[in-house]
This record gives sequence, structure tokens and C-alpha cells, in this order.
Amino acid sequence: MDEARQRPLRVVIVGAGFAGMQCARALAHAPVEVTILDRTNHHLFQPLLYQVATAALSPGDVAWPVRSVFRNQRNATVLMAEVTGVDTASRVVLTAGGDRVPYDALVIATGATHSYFGRDDWAEFAPGLKTVEDATAIRRRLLLAFEAAEVAPDEASRRRLLTFAVIGGGPTGVELAGALAEVAHRTLNGEFRRSDPGRARIVLIEAGPRLLPAFPEDLAAEAARSLEHMGVEVRTETRVTGVDRAGVDCGDERIDASSVVWAAGVQASAAGEWLDAPRDRARRIQVGPDLTVPGHPEIFAAGDTVTATDGTGRQVPGIAPAAKQMGRYIGEVLAARATGGPAPGPFAYTDHGSLATVGRRSAVVSLRSGVKLRGVIGWWFWGIAHVFYLIGFRSRVVVSFIWLWSYLTGQRGARLITGAAPPRVGEGTGFAAADDRVDRAA
Amino acid sequence: MDEARQRPLRVVIVGAGFAGMQCARALAHAPVEVTILDRTNHHLFQPLLYQVATAALSPGDVAWPVRSVFRNQRNATVLMAEVTGVDTASRVVLTAGGDRVPYDALVIATGATHSYFGRDDWAEFAPGLKTVEDATAIRRRLLLAFEAAEVAPDEASRRRLLTFAVIGGGPTGVELAGALAEVAHRTLNGEFRRSDPGRARIVLIEAGPRLLPAFPEDLAAEAARSLEHMGVEVRTETRVTGVDRAGVDCGDERIDASSVVWAAGVQASAAGEWLDAPRDRARRIQVGPDLTVPGHPEIFAAGDTVTATDGTGRQVPGIAPAAKQMGRYIGEVLAARATGGPAPGPFAYTDHGSLATVGRRSAVVSLRSGVKLRGVIGWWFWGIAHVFYLIGFRSRVVVSFIWLWSYLTGQRGARLITGAAPPRVGEGTGFAAADDRVDRAA
Repeated sequence: MDEARQRPLRVVIVGAGFAGMQCARALAHAPVEVTILDRTNHHLFQPLLYQVATAALSPGDVAWPVRSVFRNQRNATVLMAEVTGVDTASRVVLTAGGDRVPYDALVIATGATHSYFGRDDWAEFAPGLKTVEDATAIRRRLLLAFEAAEVAPDEASRRRLLTFAVIGGGPTGVELAGALAEVAHRTLNGEFRRSDPGRARIVLIEAGPRLLPAFPEDLAAEAARSLEHMGVEVRTETRVTGVDRAGVDCGDERIDASSVVWAAGVQASAAGEWLDAPRDRARRIQVGPDLTVPGHPEIFAAGDTVTATDGTGRQVPGIAPAAKQMGRYIGEVLAARATGGPAPGPFAYTDHGSLATVGRRSAVVSLRSGVKLRGVIGWWFWGIAHVFYLIGFRSRVVVSFIWLWSYLTGQRGARLITGAAPPRVGEGTGFAAADDRVDRAA
Repeated sequence: MDEARQRPLRVVIVGAGFAGMQCARALAHAPVEVTILDRTNHHLFQPLLYQVATAALSPGDVAWPVRSVFRNQRNATVLMAEVTGVDTASRVVLTAGGDRVPYDALVIATGATHSYFGRDDWAEFAPGLKTVEDATAIRRRLLLAFEAAEVAPDEASRRRLLTFAVIGGGPTGVELAGALAEVAHRTLNGEFRRSDPGRARIVLIEAGPRLLPAFPEDLAAEAARSLEHMGVEVRTETRVTGVDRAGVDCGDERIDASSVVWAAGVQASAAGEWLDAPRDRARRIQVGPDLTVPGHPEIFAAGDTVTATDGTGRQVPGIAPAAKQMGRYIGEVLAARATGGPAPGPFAYTDHGSLATVGRRSAVVSLRSGVKLRGVIGWWFWGIAHVFYLIGFRSRVVVSFIWLWSYLTGQRGARLITGAAPPRVGEGTGFAAADDRVDRAA
């Protein structure tokens, strides 16, 4: 401990999501050395990622270089590195590049990934939406399906190509289905000569009895009505039993679809295994009231990779505001430790409410005060809240302008089909190349 | 011919670049059926592609869906398809998907690709810049080099990682080198804790006696001075004799570099082979004064894939305005044929001048009138001209705002390292993973 006193406390934060970023910022004026490790170079504003997947925003609009955020925080070092494990005995973080990063205090904020409930073979056909790469891959798949429909040889394959299934009726699924309906019925309308994107079928599949289980029942019903009004087929109490290249099975029912997106389940990152910490069924680390990992007062964990109860015994939800609050709390605990100040009490979660957008002019908002907003008013509230929380002046202005433009014109500005190779119609759409032949010489 | 009279002339345009787009637009009111084939779904504003490669703009800012441009042109059909050949006897275009697209008139506007002058093995280490994928791959490589330098084990490897070579001193090379100098010396300055991007070395290599051979000599000298002022090493009369994973050889001199970009040579697309048309050394189709392919009055070719002389016997340059003029001319010829109107005279090229930007506040402009602009005035002229020619209101406003923001702050908004897999430092930077190890536990 004497040696530790002579140099600043070394805080290593793994993960530059909402929790990690807030933690590092809360340490800005503390006598510590902060090292932030992330396998990407950017912080991603995940709540808007579905807008990248549906071609409304560009990746650069919703992601920022981590090191540019900490440019002026001189006690922070940002390293782009993939963490592969933690040596808790020597207090060293191990990376794929062979780095060994020593810590006095460690913050695990590694988020969550998709969970296919044991059916990882579905992942290939029903990608989830967690990274920029996920979003551009889904965008490519969706847009290619419309292109393939334009050259499809017959009505049956055209119908299949223009069928899109979204699995999971939480906020991500609702937002994706609504955005997809807009793309098909509004943005692309009138741009095709042989196929009609307005006839595209969008199916939102939810195993539970209703959409948006975290919302009050009347708002969830409102969201379902809005989606149906936009042309989305909402299928609750429908369990997916199979996913393959050409569609989805729900028990006896078959839905032929060119594109399937997975928004049904998440599981925590693998960080719990690095620490051999107690975890729940979704791999989430069970942290104590001060968000430390049991048996390791020097290791904290926050965000979607943990399961926590706050002071009142209530489960902290897996949403961005909760992750930010946890990260900020850990920063405060560590700042107190570094300065020898009094330690904050146990973590207390402040619920500000829930919000989800349904379409271009519709959102549902449930505030803690009991106030509920819906429709256009909800949409404006949702938009302003999201723009407000975007990092950086530039993104706020650009995103605001793009939304306003899109709101007025129905256009989307990021409709690029890009990939490693020059893309070909049919590829990646679950659509065999041979189906693709059209003899127009007839 | 009687049969042809009974139905509209079928015009097939291969390639949705500047020439193809202008040709299709010029046919908007003609009694023809236009089919536009492109292997991507977007028209790319290539003059700004270097800004995507250097993280200033997002791909969506410089590319637009072809079909959205022709949404209201009811005689135009857009198909995303890769053309593999032409059956000139049956007058049918063949596609990779197996489509056979019949034509009465064919317009080849397939552009150019990189030429490594017989050293195609260099392509892997020195990518060129022609597609959105090229640009994001180069961006990834450049940004990863800075990240790798931050974890480099010693000064020698850090120096190599922070050395960037641009081969070719034409407008693309000049613009890339200038933008790179800005990224290193301005944007990233202060964001790293262990390495100093301000010490990055940017080398612009040109085999000829000076930069920008198409510009007046004094403007080229001005561009070289501006680049040197920005910290670029300008090496004229320097011939590249080798390119490998770790750098460039120029005769006896070795330049160790993590990233090499190729801006030295282009060759025409393979379209000349489809037609078995006469071509020059750079594979460009030699077209007649009305831009038809010799022996095929029904086949036209335009843009970077042809070599043409205009009415005055002067060689038409391989730049965007020339491609647009050729495309528009072909559209007028075809409209005249469709309506039986008088055929226009031979193609005449109108030279409006040349312009190239050097850095954030510097450009060189040479107008046909003899007026020369340079420095800040040149830069404003360049910026306004480019914004003016961007397609679409949204992109104009977004790009203008981003430039203004970047001009004032020095920041760049699209600094994402993305790729198919979660990127790792070291990968793709010509930087072996083992070099990457840093033992920070010491």
C-alpha cells in the first residue's frame, strides 16, 4: 500500500460504452491514471444504431473516436486493444496483442452481445444489432433484397424477397420494424419499375403476450397500433422455432423471408469468465451494492454486463441511462478512494422513464413522473432527448438536420450497399444466385 | 427497322458514373426506354472520395442511390447488376446474375481502375482509391497505424508506423497527401499520450519532374510549396521500384512506411475487351468523333474508359467535367435518333479549367480564361464548386456544414475504424502482431 501511495492509482477501464465513458469522465479531476481499453476506436451511441441499419444515418453520425473525447483529459490514455483475460492475482489485464496492462483498480464495462438461446446456428441468418459492422451488414442485406426483387424472375420469389422478419418485440425490434416499414412504404416508394416496395411485408415476431414489456400496457398497445397502421404485421405470442436462409418457422407456420433480424435476446460479454465471478443465466456478473465483484474490492463492473440491484432492492434495467449512472458512480467511488475522501453509499438508480420510437412521427414515452407521451409529441420528445445526449456539437447539428430533412422529404441519406467486395445482387440476401436469372430478351 | 419504329428505342447504359448519369438525364424527355446498369447501387462523387479516405466525410455524404436520382424519370429503369460481356451480334448485354439485357443502343461508361504498370503484386500493399470500399479500407489502414504507434514497443517501429507514402503527384495524390498532413498534424494532435502524430512523416512520390502536370507550372510549384509548408515531403523525379508490406523502394532509397496509397496510374475498365474494340495502352477504347465505337454506330462509349479527341483534334482529358459532357452529348445524339431530328455535330469539349485542393485553406485553380487562383481564395472557389456539383440538397447542406465545422475546429467527423471483423491494432497496417507487444508491467 505504501508503494501505491507514491504513485497515482492506476484505473483501467475495459470498454468505451456508456458505462466506461462516464466512469472515465467522472475521474477527470481525480489524482489517478486512467487507461481506457476498447477493441474498436469509437464510442457508439447504440440507441441510434437501428437508424444506421435502416439507412437513415451514417455510422460516423452515431460513433466518435474515444480518444477525441478524452483529448483534453490529460490523466486519460486510450488504447485500442482487445482484452482476452484478466490475471486477478497479478492485477494485470491481458490483450490479444500481447500487452499486459497493470491496474490498481479495474472497471469492467464490456456490454452485451446477442443471445440465440442456444441456437447459435441462427446467427448467420438472423444477425443482431450491436456494432457498426452489424448495422452496415444489415443495411446491405435489406437494401440488396429490394434490388434483387427488381430482377426477380417471378412473383413468388419477389414476394419472398420483399418479406422482412424482425424477431423480438422490445424497443430495438419495434424501432427496426417501424423504420423498415418507412423504408419500404415511403422512402423507396416509386423508385422501382418492376417490383413494388410498397407491397413489402414486415413481420414483427414476439414470443410474449405484448410488445415493449418494460412499458405501461396502454403505451405498448399504442405502439402496436401505430406499427399496424404503418403496415407492420405484429405477431405476439408467437415463438420462433427455426431460422434458415429462406425464412422463419414459428411452430407450424412458415414465414418465407429474405431478411431476418434478431432483436430477441442479449447475453453479457465474456468478462465474467475472465474473473470467474458469479453470474446469472445471461452471463451477467452479480455485483454488490457498490458495484464491485464479490471477493474483489478492486474490481468493479457496470452496464449491460452486470446484474445489479440498487439500494432499494430493485433490479437495475439494462438500458443506456442505467449504464451511465453506474459508470459515474464507480468513478465517484474511485475518486474518493484516490483522495481518501468518504466513500459514497451504495449505488442508487434514478429512473427517468422509458422511450421508444415507432416511426417517423410516432414514439411512446413513459416518464417516471407518470406522464405518458405518444404520437407526434412523443416523437419530438424522443428526438430532442436523443440529440441532446449525442456527444459533440457536430453530430448534434448534423443529426438534427438529417432528421429534419428526412422528416420533410421521407428520404434517407445513407442508402449505400457497401462491402468488402463489389456487391452482387442475390448475395447475402439468402437468395440463391440461380434464382436470380431473368431472361429479358424474350 | 420497322419493328424498332413500333416500340421505343431501348437504350442501355452500363455504369452510373458521371458520364452514364448525364446521358440518362439527357434522355429524360426522349421517346426511349433507358436501362441503367451498375454493379453498385450508388453514384459516387469521386472527386471527394479522398475526404472519405481521410475521415473528413462519411461514404453517405459523397454517394447517392442511383434509383433515387431517377425516381421521377419514368422512362428510366435502374438495375443493380455486374456486366460481364456484350453480345454485339444479338445486341444483348450479359450480366453476372445471368440476365440478358437487350439494347438498340448501348452506352459504355464503365470508368477506370488502378493501373500498377504490370506490378499487380503491389496492389495489396498500395491500395488505390476508386470505390467506397477502397476509401473505407484506406481510412481503416491509416487510422490503425496511428493506433498501433500508440502501443509500439520502440521508437523505430513507431517511426515506421507514422510514415505514410502517397505514390503519384496528380490531383488525387496531392489532395491525399495534404489531407493526411492535416489529419496527423492537426486533427490527431494532442490525442495520443505515448506517440506524437505531429511527428508523422508524409512522403509524396512523383516520377515526373513536377506535381500536377495538367496545371500551369507556377500553380504546381505553389501546390508543392503549400504541401511542404504543411509538412509533406515532396519527392519529384523519384521512381518507385518496389512496394511491400513494410514500405517503398525508390531505387537505392528505402522508405519504411506503414501505409502506402497508390495514386499513380489508372487504366480503363475491361469494357474494350467485351466489344473487341480498338484500344490504347491504357485499355481505353478509341472512339470516333461522335463517341461511337468503330464499326458499331449503335454503341457509344464515354468517360474514363475512352480516349477521344474533340472537334479541334485536342485530346479530351480524363476528368469528371469531360465525362459529364460526353455523357450529355451521347444523350443528345440518341434523343435526335429517337425523334428523327437532326444529329448534333461531332463532340466538342469545353474546358472550364482545373482545380485541386492542397489542404484546409489552400487550393490551386486554373480557369480557362487564364485566371489563376491559389491559397485561401482558391480553396473557397474549390469548395463552392464542389458543393455546387454535389447531387441533392441534403448532401450540399450536410457537406457544407461539415466542412465549415472542420475548417473552424480542425476536427474530422468520420474517424471510424470499421471492417468485417472487430478490428485489431496491427492488422492491416503491414505491422506484424508480434511487434505489437508492449510490456507495461515493467
